[in-house]
Amino acid sequence: MNFQNKLDNIVKKNNSLLCVGLDQSEFEFNQKIIDQTHDLVCAYKPNFAFYEALGTRGWENLKKTVEYIQRYHSGVVTIADAKRADIGSTNAGYVKAIFDELKFDAVTVNPYFGREALQPFLDRKDKGIIILCKTSNPGSGEFQDGLWEKVAKNVVSEWNKNNNCLLVAGATYPDELKKIREIVGEMTLLVPGIGAQGGEVEKTVKAGLNSKKAGLIINSSRGIIFSANPRLEAQKLKEAINKYRL
Amino acid sequence: MNFQNKLDNIVKKNNSLLCVGLDQSEFEFNQKIIDQTHDLVCAYKPNFAFYEALGTRGWENLKKTVEYIQRYHSGVVTIADAKRADIGSTNAGYVKAIFDELKFDAVTVNPYFGREALQPFLDRKDKGIIILCKTSNPGSGEFQDGLWEKVAKNVVSEWNKNNNCLLVAGATYPDELKKIREIVGEMTLLVPGIGAQGGEVEKTVKAGLNSKKAGLIINSSRGIIFSANPRLEAQKLKEAINKYRL
Repeated sequence: MNFQNKLDNIVKKNNSLLCVGLDQSEFEFNQKIIDQTHDLVCAYKPNFAFYEALGTRGWENLKKTVEYIQRYHSGVVTIADAKRADIGSTNAGYVKAIFDELKFDAVTVNPYFGREALQPFLDRKDKGIIILCKTSNPGSGEFQDGLWEKVAKNVVSEWNKNNNCLLVAGATYPDELKKIREIVGEMTLLVPGIGAQGGEVEKTVKAGLNSKKAGLIINSSRGIIFSANPRLEAQKLKEAINKYRL
Repeated sequence: MNFQNKLDNIVKKNNSLLCVGLDQSEFEFNQKIIDQTHDLVCAYKPNFAFYEALGTRGWENLKKTVEYIQRYHSGVVTIADAKRADIGSTNAGYVKAIFDELKFDAVTVNPYFGREALQPFLDRKDKGIIILCKTSNPGSGEFQDGLWEKVAKNVVSEWNKNNNCLLVAGATYPDELKKIREIVGEMTLLVPGIGAQGGEVEKTVKAGLNSKKAGLIINSSRGIIFSANPRLEAQKLKEAINKYRL
């Protein structure tokens, strides 16, 4: 089963486009978040920066977190938010680390080196390769203005031979999100930036849905995992997304 | 002492612009390479992909490698070839991992998110922040054509307030390397791509030197570390570089 099929299945089963960002580094903390939210989400997305800050122990906690999800909630997709990229022969190491060692279903990658370099990722037909296009940060325009359209176009026309590509489009730029949707057709978009970063649910969903009223993985991290009641916040955000979707 | 001072000192002491890329994941292997080459180089540069492929054990070997260099050859600079980049608040995790946990002197970063996002790196006045500009891989033109000049210009004019920026310019593109040198003045350039990737020493040195006959960190990995006699290969490359430099 490839990544998109696995994603479609869990989106249908849990009726959710919500991804919870596991952006802290303790395994037991993640365990509690996963126990409380696994039937409300389509994906979990640990960002590697938070784990690496703890060194080897962080790396162990990352591995235990993925194992826990796959052992108890194997339908939920796991996204390695690692934003990796290097020259081609070197990327083979990252592919091994993320897919074979840590056993993630998908990974975020940075397009700066071009398709030729990222081929070791793109060759993994069973996995999701999520390419940065328009990122959610305030200063993303510095180099992405005039470039994100080209990234989206090239990914659709040349990178996606194995039907395993997705793009990152920040919720903080709904106009760009809408244009990216127009360029990529049905392709799934990973959307960070809801909540703490300022992205709005209604604008995001209306701008980003594909023709099947899906095609989005909408991430929230801090707003859920550090709230007093993570299950309640996840439920509320899932329903807010579905309000504009269904 | 900031990164550039530390680099200037070791370039002078060892009379070398050579960096050895520690692109495999065993500590004992690195130990032997370091023992054989420490007086011939200005820098060591482990690429994280090779270590991460081994999971937590790889991360431990990375840490032990940096500790070994700093314990026995503390003058030689250590470069984390990690090519990290994320939104600003998240980059703080990578900064902690690479500078505080692993204790590297410098790190490579990807410019795609823009300066605003990379500020947590740029704020580290004591460290070297090495920004990808024109990478050495055959397909780097896909998005870098028309962009690398802008990256070089912005880094010089806006990113380098703390005088801690360097750029990556591949030896496989000597014409671009020459233009980057014209844009950046005296700024040090990290140059991968010599040897196995096809970059030539003479063209690289002639195109890349600054007015002080320095300003380059020229990396070789496979051609040295997997050779029958790493010390001999390092000596040869150091001297080949100096032949066109001095």
